Amino acid sequence: MTEQPSALKNVRIVLVQTWHPGNIGAAARAMRTMGLSQLVLVNPRRFPDEEATRMAAGGEPLLEQARVVESLEDAVSDCGIVVGLSARLRNLALPQFEEGDEMARELMSLAEEMPVALVFGRERSGLTNDEIACCTHQLSLPANPDYPILNLSQAVQVCAHELYRAWRHRRTDSGITTHEGESEREKDLPPTREQMQHFQQSLAAALQEAGFLNQPHAQTLERLQNFYRRASPTRKELSLLQGALKALRQPH
Amino acid sequence: MTEQPSALKNVRIVLVQTWHPGNIGAAARAMRTMGLSQLVLVNPRRFPDEEATRMAAGGEPLLEQARVVESLEDAVSDCGIVVGLSARLRNLALPQFEEGDEMARELMSLAEEMPVALVFGRERSGLTNDEIACCTHQLSLPANPDYPILNLSQAVQVCAHELYRAWRHRRTDSGITTHEGESEREKDLPPTREQMQHFQQSLAAALQEAGFLNQPHAQTLERLQNFYRRASPTRKELSLLQGALKALRQPH
Repeated sequence: MTEQPSALKNVRIVLVQTWHPGNIGAAARAMRTMGLSQLVLVNPRRFPDEEATRMAAGGEPLLEQARVVESLEDAVSDCGIVVGLSARLRNLALPQFEEGDEMARELMSLAEEMPVALVFGRERSGLTNDEIACCTHQLSLPANPDYPILNLSQAVQVCAHELYRAWRHRRTDSGITTHEGESEREKDLPPTREQMQHFQQSLAAALQEAGFLNQPHAQTLERLQNFYRRASPTRKELSLLQGALKALRQPH
Repeated sequence: MTEQPSALKNVRIVLVQTWHPGNIGAAARAMRTMGLSQLVLVNPRRFPDEEATRMAAGGEPLLEQARVVESLEDAVSDCGIVVGLSARLRNLALPQFEEGDEMARELMSLAEEMPVALVFGRERSGLTNDEIACCTHQLSLPANPDYPILNLSQAVQVCAHELYRAWRHRRTDSGITTHEGESEREKDLPPTREQMQHFQQSLAAALQEAGFLNQPHAQTLERLQNFYRRASPTRKELSLLQGALKALRQPH
């Protein structure tokens, strides 16, 4: 009975450097209507703020409990999946969800086990490249090509609605909890962002050492790192990859 | 080719006696992002209005073309289906859609043929009985029972998103081929089984050499090979992986 609400509690909505405080309030309201409660603000321009409170209506408790942090990294480092909302970007090699419902099913399924995050960029300029690099996936809500620009809180509402639906539908079909050994299950979880980051850095260092990155414009490292991100190794697999890399690096 | 846009044009969003002009503007923006254009206002408290224009952003053209009428009857008399949004009402004998997507499929399918309408009541008091009697169906968006009250324009956004999706999915059944450059496409193809096999063998040899496979029962190699199989690298990615492995194997 307490298990399902915890899945919703594992969903974090992260707003990066929001300009209009009213959007923060409206986002909090949108979240509350769909049963979400974890709001994290990265460097908001103004917060707390009267306009945010006014727009929150019934979402006020979320504002009171909102966590304010200084970087996106701080907001998502313990998350298993981090989805950045963005207008469609061609060169962005993050794995992409084509639809909100696809994203929602994936997030809610993992949220049974560990924290997950949905990240919304600045009203005008979205996310920086460094921030995009903190994400594991992206979602572009399909929209009218003539004017695809949803208001920030509207995008939150659409996603929250999808998440709530995915959660409700999940609840009705599953029902039974399996009892595997805890450590077995953990091995199949996705790594945290931090663990993944650590592997990506080792990979970069090893290839640098081996002289494999000698053509700076070939984007070799980016492509390989994107491959590993997209491949979504389990925790166990990542630890094997890390071990293999270490073995290969040692002079033999 | 002109037929599908006309289906979106046959969808009418009707706002009944909206109190806050800002909600009218935000609703217009929400509509535009999802390709809807027909906005009808029944007795708006203030319209046109500065706040409506401000909140519309790119939705201004919809405000300019909005039709203002005096009764809901006037707004929907030529429609084939009229869905009233409402909090769940027990005594309401209208047929009820349980989910937004169900409503959207039904509306978009009929919109190929004739006008259809989605009706949103007053911010606080919703629709009167006479107005409900103008509807053929109702929809209550499933929401958090502790606070199910979506802002008016947020409810419009959620429904518009569902309608746009229903319309797109209808369209994509047709099937259009894109023409990318052949060589670009080839790089994105999956490798042949032979290419993949070759990589897996190199991996095995490298890890053997590096002394990483010293525990025969740990299934280390199988697990890593399964990971790479599951990750489905593209041809380009596989050739980078192969190159990286070769570089790491060379004594350095």
